[in-house]
Amino acid sequence: MSDTHALEALVQSLRRLPGVGVRSAQRMAFHLLQHDREGAQVLARALQEAIARMRHCSQCNTFTEAEVCATCSDPRRDASKLCVVETPADQAALERTGAFKGRYFVLMGKLNPIDGVGPRDIGMHKLLERATDGVVQEVIVATNFTAEGEATAHVLAQALKARGLLVTRLARGVPAGSELEYVDLGTIAHALVDRR
Amino acid sequence: MSDTHALEALVQSLRRLPGVGVRSAQRMAFHLLQHDREGAQVLARALQEAIARMRHCSQCNTFTEAEVCATCSDPRRDASKLCVVETPADQAALERTGAFKGRYFVLMGKLNPIDGVGPRDIGMHKLLERATDGVVQEVIVATNFTAEGEATAHVLAQALKARGLLVTRLARGVPAGSELEYVDLGTIAHALVDRR
Repeated sequence: MSDTHALEALVQSLRRLPGVGVRSAQRMAFHLLQHDREGAQVLARALQEAIARMRHCSQCNTFTEAEVCATCSDPRRDASKLCVVETPADQAALERTGAFKGRYFVLMGKLNPIDGVGPRDIGMHKLLERATDGVVQEVIVATNFTAEGEATAHVLAQALKARGLLVTRLARGVPAGSELEYVDLGTIAHALVDRR
Repeated sequence: MSDTHALEALVQSLRRLPGVGVRSAQRMAFHLLQHDREGAQVLARALQEAIARMRHCSQCNTFTEAEVCATCSDPRRDASKLCVVETPADQAALERTGAFKGRYFVLMGKLNPIDGVGPRDIGMHKLLERATDGVVQEVIVATNFTAEGEATAHVLAQALKARGLLVTRLARGVPAGSELEYVDLGTIAHALVDRR
């Protein structure tokens, strides 16, 4: 209908968000227009600000407003250890543990040949350049333990080892606090193989 | 972190969308910044356009860019029948059937005392004014058959009947094309009571 063009355009643009179908998009549009017009304004401004300000760290590839992100600029971090993660969210999860004091490289994705995501899309060239700076000695590949994450780890490890770097992977095993009875078979099998 | 302020503000504003938690909001923000900056621009503009243009039809309360919406302006629609629905999506569902040629009133919500949604929030005053224009003879209450939709229908029907209007409700019964064996008991019971 010609008198609801702006509403339809809003629904269509909300559908570009991952995981949002036509019904969710309609619900979001109705909610914003009916109950939270201020929220819609805030969101519009936040989108424009984020596009204008956020870029990739020249060192680790994560999102930052600066040339080099806060973690890469921190002189207290051990520059000889480089941890490779898929996303900033994975990096945040590792940081919350407080167990890693090295630096990071954020792939911003994972290899996925079906969706056409190749080595170039996950910044593999940038990672290899970063890892061969002469300071990095160990690369810890902390991609997820999913099919794509494992494939990505395999490809990265091959390329990194070929350049003479020590490449490690996060240990797989039984999660802390869990009972064996309720742990899946694949995890137990891995924990047996990697026993120490 | 101070160097990711714009990203965090974006995540926070995405969380204001209904059904979006912190993880979905992060995933949306990463997706837009990494893969669809044009989509972020389009969404920002669509939000501002929708806020600026969309208002409520003075007749039926639905969203429109005009003073009176397309349905209310259509002289071929029967002004003696007024169908009350919760949302524009419900109105669209009824319109797709082609079975109703009257006019609409869109509540833009439903009564929900727990969430503090009272008669004023669903435009009950505007509905009563609209329904007592001397032309409307029958009000078809087509709120949803949920607990809140039924409660809303009950309250509206009482107020409308008190003003001498004929008030009807959509028939409940067995959905078209369904087999009794797979229909829930409540629906079969209603279909028995309302048999014709």
